[in-house]
Amino acid sequence: MSIEERLASLRITLPKAEPSLVCPICVVTGRLLYVPGSGPTPIEGKLPKGKLGREFTTEQGRVFARSAGLEILALVKHQLGSLDRVSRVVKLQGFVNATPEFEEHSLVIAGCSDLMMEVFGDRGKHARSVFGAMSLRANLPIIVDSIFEIA
Amino acid sequence: MSIEERLASLRITLPKAEPSLVCPICVVTGRLLYVPGSGPTPIEGKLPKGKLGREFTTEQGRVFARSAGLEILALVKHQLGSLDRVSRVVKLQGFVNATPEFEEHSLVIAGCSDLMMEVFGDRGKHARSVFGAMSLRANLPIIVDSIFEIA
Amino acid sequence: MSIEERLASLRITLPKAEPSLVCPICVVTGRLLYVPGSGPTPIEGKLPKGKLGREFTTEQGRVFARSAGLEILALVKHQLGSLDRVSRVVKLQGFVNATPEFEEHSLVIAGCSDLMMEVFGDRGKHARSVFGAMSLRANLPIIVDSIFEIA
Repeated sequence: MSIEERLASLRITLPKAEPSLVCPICVVTGRLLYVPGSGPTPIEGKLPKGKLGREFTTEQGRVFARSAGLEILALVKHQLGSLDRVSRVVKLQGFVNATPEFEEHSLVIAGCSDLMMEVFGDRGKHARSVFGAMSLRANLPIIVDSIFEIA
Repeated sequence: MSIEERLASLRITLPKAEPSLVCPICVVTGRLLYVPGSGPTPIEGKLPKGKLGREFTTEQGRVFARSAGLEILALVKHQLGSLDRVSRVVKLQGFVNATPEFEEHSLVIAGCSDLMMEVFGDRGKHARSVFGAMSLRANLPIIVDSIFEIA
Repeated sequence: MSIEERLASLRITLPKAEPSLVCPICVVTGRLLYVPGSGPTPIEGKLPKGKLGREFTTEQGRVFARSAGLEILALVKHQLGSLDRVSRVVKLQGFVNATPEFEEHSLVIAGCSDLMMEVFGDRGKHARSVFGAMSLRANLPIIVDSIFEIA
């Protein structure tokens, strides 16, 4: 089953790849694909804004992290032509816009991790790290940095 | 002298590799090994919790960073079978759970850097960066992201 | 035109590569060059200190990010002998010492991104991410982590 077929069977629709105007670049070097830091896609035309532990709950953060993952997949597909060229999700690094007391960063980034494993199966297993950021561009609740291996 | 012999001569005992349940994955791509963000190991069964510049001093932070380094080495050994397969420590990135006024991040992450150079000698010399995080999972005082080159 | 000639035509002078005493290491692995996290160079012998959104404006931050980029280029040149060996700027990750309310991180790191594109042209296009840090070593306003591909 191709990844496109798997996306369809999972009823996952990727957003249109509209990389931010500021720095829309994916870079391929050797077999690695570096994807720019990606945030959640707009909900009814509006980007979510605020901090985990204050404006947003951990569960909302997990949904935003999944949404950032969809944005990442849209960029990867746009860059490679097909998600079937991904041989491994190598690394996710989550920046969570959080309060100083927030402790559930792992549960937030899990929303993006789970998406990668749904879409790519064993190839979706990745090294991961996450931390609380003081602030993020446009007050986004989360940004995810990512690296993929291509076949 | 093998790295195991060197560890013994340095009286360094690695913790048992018990990667967190949340995301326990190391990824090998080409000659690079990406290790998940690792924190200090428990002290008498309890993980340290708190911020540098408030609950903890710089010197305590340095010890925590060394402990995170031991956790990293345990994961690397578990992944590769032997630490002798490491040909270079490529990169360490430290996330220090810190106050807004904290300025000694370099002295904290040095605890992990020094360990790598003790264990691997010249192969332990690495590129490094470090920053203060707003918050970290479970209120850990430090997490270290790392990349190794394998022979 | 060599990169040195381009630097001259752009009237860009690199600082003397004086990597911090703490961790002065660049690492080459395969065709990738990992550069240690770099901050702005001193102005009249003094390093800038403070947070974006409080001590410094976004426009000042952009200048500091460009200055950090010059520091990076000095390290790369010192490591490789010539900037002409750079075949691609792969990744920039900016740590902006910022207030919790700051939202213009992209405009700050753009100062470093623009420098890379001035100097390397299309080879300077890179994947990028940026976040607000709680605090940075020596209260620097920005640190930039970077990865280059070498020919």
